[in-house]
Amino acid sequence: MQMPAPDTAVIARRDQIAGRLRAAVADKAAVITDPAETRAYECDALSAYRCPPLVVVLPSTTEEVAAVLRICAEEGVPVVPRGAGTSLAGGAMPTADAVMIGLARMNAVLEISPEDRLIRVQTGRTNLAVTGAVEGQGFFYAPDPSSQLACAIGGNIAMNSGGAHCLKYGVTTNNLLGVTMVLMDGSIVELGGPMGEGAGLDLLGLICGSEGQLGIVTEATLRILPKPAGARPVLVAFDSAETAGACVAAIIRSGILPVAIEYMDRPCIAATEDFCGAGYPQCEALLIIEVEGTAPEITEQLTLIRQIAEGFGPLEFRESRSEDESKRIWLGRKSAFGAMGVISDYMCLDGTIPVSQLPHVLNRIGELSAEAGLRVANVFHAGDGNMHPLILFDANTPGDLERCEALGADILRLCVEVGGCLTGEHGVGVEKRELMGTQYGPDDLEVQMQVKDVFDPHWLLNAAKVFPLAVSAPRRGQDAA
Amino acid sequence: MQMPAPDTAVIARRDQIAGRLRAAVADKAAVITDPAETRAYECDALSAYRCPPLVVVLPSTTEEVAAVLRICAEEGVPVVPRGAGTSLAGGAMPTADAVMIGLARMNAVLEISPEDRLIRVQTGRTNLAVTGAVEGQGFFYAPDPSSQLACAIGGNIAMNSGGAHCLKYGVTTNNLLGVTMVLMDGSIVELGGPMGEGAGLDLLGLICGSEGQLGIVTEATLRILPKPAGARPVLVAFDSAETAGACVAAIIRSGILPVAIEYMDRPCIAATEDFCGAGYPQCEALLIIEVEGTAPEITEQLTLIRQIAEGFGPLEFRESRSEDESKRIWLGRKSAFGAMGVISDYMCLDGTIPVSQLPHVLNRIGELSAEAGLRVANVFHAGDGNMHPLILFDANTPGDLERCEALGADILRLCVEVGGCLTGEHGVGVEKRELMGTQYGPDDLEVQMQVKDVFDPHWLLNAAKVFPLAVSAPRRGQDAA
Repeated sequence: MQMPAPDTAVIARRDQIAGRLRAAVADKAAVITDPAETRAYECDALSAYRCPPLVVVLPSTTEEVAAVLRICAEEGVPVVPRGAGTSLAGGAMPTADAVMIGLARMNAVLEISPEDRLIRVQTGRTNLAVTGAVEGQGFFYAPDPSSQLACAIGGNIAMNSGGAHCLKYGVTTNNLLGVTMVLMDGSIVELGGPMGEGAGLDLLGLICGSEGQLGIVTEATLRILPKPAGARPVLVAFDSAETAGACVAAIIRSGILPVAIEYMDRPCIAATEDFCGAGYPQCEALLIIEVEGTAPEITEQLTLIRQIAEGFGPLEFRESRSEDESKRIWLGRKSAFGAMGVISDYMCLDGTIPVSQLPHVLNRIGELSAEAGLRVANVFHAGDGNMHPLILFDANTPGDLERCEALGADILRLCVEVGGCLTGEHGVGVEKRELMGTQYGPDDLEVQMQVKDVFDPHWLLNAAKVFPLAVSAPRRGQDAA
Repeated sequence: MQMPAPDTAVIARRDQIAGRLRAAVADKAAVITDPAETRAYECDALSAYRCPPLVVVLPSTTEEVAAVLRICAEEGVPVVPRGAGTSLAGGAMPTADAVMIGLARMNAVLEISPEDRLIRVQTGRTNLAVTGAVEGQGFFYAPDPSSQLACAIGGNIAMNSGGAHCLKYGVTTNNLLGVTMVLMDGSIVELGGPMGEGAGLDLLGLICGSEGQLGIVTEATLRILPKPAGARPVLVAFDSAETAGACVAAIIRSGILPVAIEYMDRPCIAATEDFCGAGYPQCEALLIIEVEGTAPEITEQLTLIRQIAEGFGPLEFRESRSEDESKRIWLGRKSAFGAMGVISDYMCLDGTIPVSQLPHVLNRIGELSAEAGLRVANVFHAGDGNMHPLILFDANTPGDLERCEALGADILRLCVEVGGCLTGEHGVGVEKRELMGTQYGPDDLEVQMQVKDVFDPHWLLNAAKVFPLAVSAPRRGQDAA
């Protein structure tokens, strides 16, 4: 993508702001204006949208973030926060006039307290490195997005991220005890703490999942959990999507609570087999069900799951008998997104639905896919109804991306219709902002925007996201066109 | 307590409002103005404060609540919502000029879906009756306040209530998926749903624990969980508070997650023995630790707990061997508040602290108690650091209540100092509103009040609570004196 050379007025503004920012941070190299370098920040994992920011700054402390935001507020310059840039919804997508605040340098562990079951970290720390800091003491941090090797806790908080094991452990908001957050005016607030949110209005719950609309979270106190005694997956193959969906609903209804129930369909299985040869059976629908506990508890749960599954006539019920077999069962699921990327461009959706609606929704996605003439592969967290349909398209075929986006919108509308919502764990970002009206009426959106007004009255913070552009335009100082 | 007869202007206003309200509800008997009847609503469980409301209305549907609020907004009359009136913090305390909206008639079950693991109820339904509606299918609703036989789900949501078993299952906010809420202007909003909160700002998390400041929640979708295979308590006796506190911290640090760790001290044990003869040992500090799971899992957890406890030289380690013994172990704990009420007036505090601070805080409470010359009995959820010190006083001794309140404030300040907060599960209400400044700075309170402004711009809804009176006065149209 060729960018036109910026004009001299833009360069002067950029250099003036960068000069003030350099005076505010200890390491002058933390402020980046060279277009060759700011290009590295032009997109996140929703890479169909790209735009380099005006300036990038990489602060090292909460105080530096506060100084940077104070300057941006004074200058009236928009700000876009970025964790690790793994957002699938364009949550960290810059605008050309924005200062991007990257958290990559802020990855320190500030406190570990096993008896209080908590860890406090700077929010640039990656998800997996949080577990890394406590696993020696027998603990782990539960939310496990697929991107956990790369994604930052700050982004997890912004998007209220989940993962395969959230069926049992909940998503980020269930594991977040407190934050240090910098408001757009540079003031620093503490919400929650070692004991979670306490007296008065629960602003901590409001912050989690607010997509960088209210402030920049720089430090977080996270709940850590004892590592389970053991875990074992089974793989169950079915000859129809509907039967697999009904089996998931029956397991949940029975009262068993596996730690994960993952679902993959035939296109997805085929792609991952080509990619990594996990040895999955060829079938229409495959479930990976994992249970945790002591050895007798695992055996008891798997016995019950086998009884239920056999009522649905599975093609295969493959129980792991070793650590190695467990890894192979998970290998294909964990490689699924990468494998699909090898065979096609794709758009990954993130709707949620009540589990009881799984058979109906899988059926209806098949019909919509056929009508649109685009293939859809399904791989998702079935146990908690968080769907990730992947729509395959060809970015080089004119009109294909637009048809893909139209189908995606239809599928997300279907999720809302059956009682689910637009996003389970990826957030709204730029990707789904125009769909917010399918979930919320004008009054609902107005209340949400009024809450943003309280924290960011001039709408400088990640402002062109989450809300439909025409709806938020007056607040952003734009025409509503 | 003698109330002066209301003057004729007040009576005229009351009758005018009541007339409009009667026209808005199906059952005219649902609007109460007779002082002999409104007296029944003059206080909640913080019975030191009493004031009958102007009018009581008991709607039956969300639409009736909306009609009532619309009339109150038009009339500019303050509103106080009430679940079952079990608030220990004065959350449902009326004012003389207010319309009280009671939810007692709204107790219907609207939907049960085991495969989606949810139930939807009207919020006047009691906590225990929620479990009652699903236990036949093998499920239960986890948060279990001591008042669960009487307290309403609406109040649980307002106060983000917990209970003995919240160490494992979390408090209300962790088990709330969606609400139907009526705003002060009579508009009806839906937040969350079968899949919990989704896209945009998490207003559902904000509503939970907002103490009726933002709207009246009339219907709630709640997470239900499979009943555990079994549960077994042990009773462990120690000769010092500090040792018992250290033992709790060691259990949590070890990674075991009991479903409950309850703590009682000598004064509390003595009172409950007199009251119900549960057969507790005479000792300085007693822990009741309950674990859940299959029989082998219970055995394994209790073996580990015994090993840890024995490192602290317990006076006794009594493991339940039958359903009957389990009931006896819980009997004293569940009777503790009632038992204390027999021997003395008391004030029940509700601070939280990090578990690692338990030994220090218990010690310091002893010192503060001695300095104040008032006895303090401790009975609380030790595993999650939610303390309930009971300060004993004599309501008939002039000055005793004031000394008791001063000591209570000192203890809550101590909780905040060590990293905890003012309230774990009872809420701020009228009881702790003047202490909010110990937890929050003026800017923090201002942001919280601005969020209330969004939902209730004229501060008609439960307005003289949660915030220090002088701080909220300008918004309530009062002088800040």
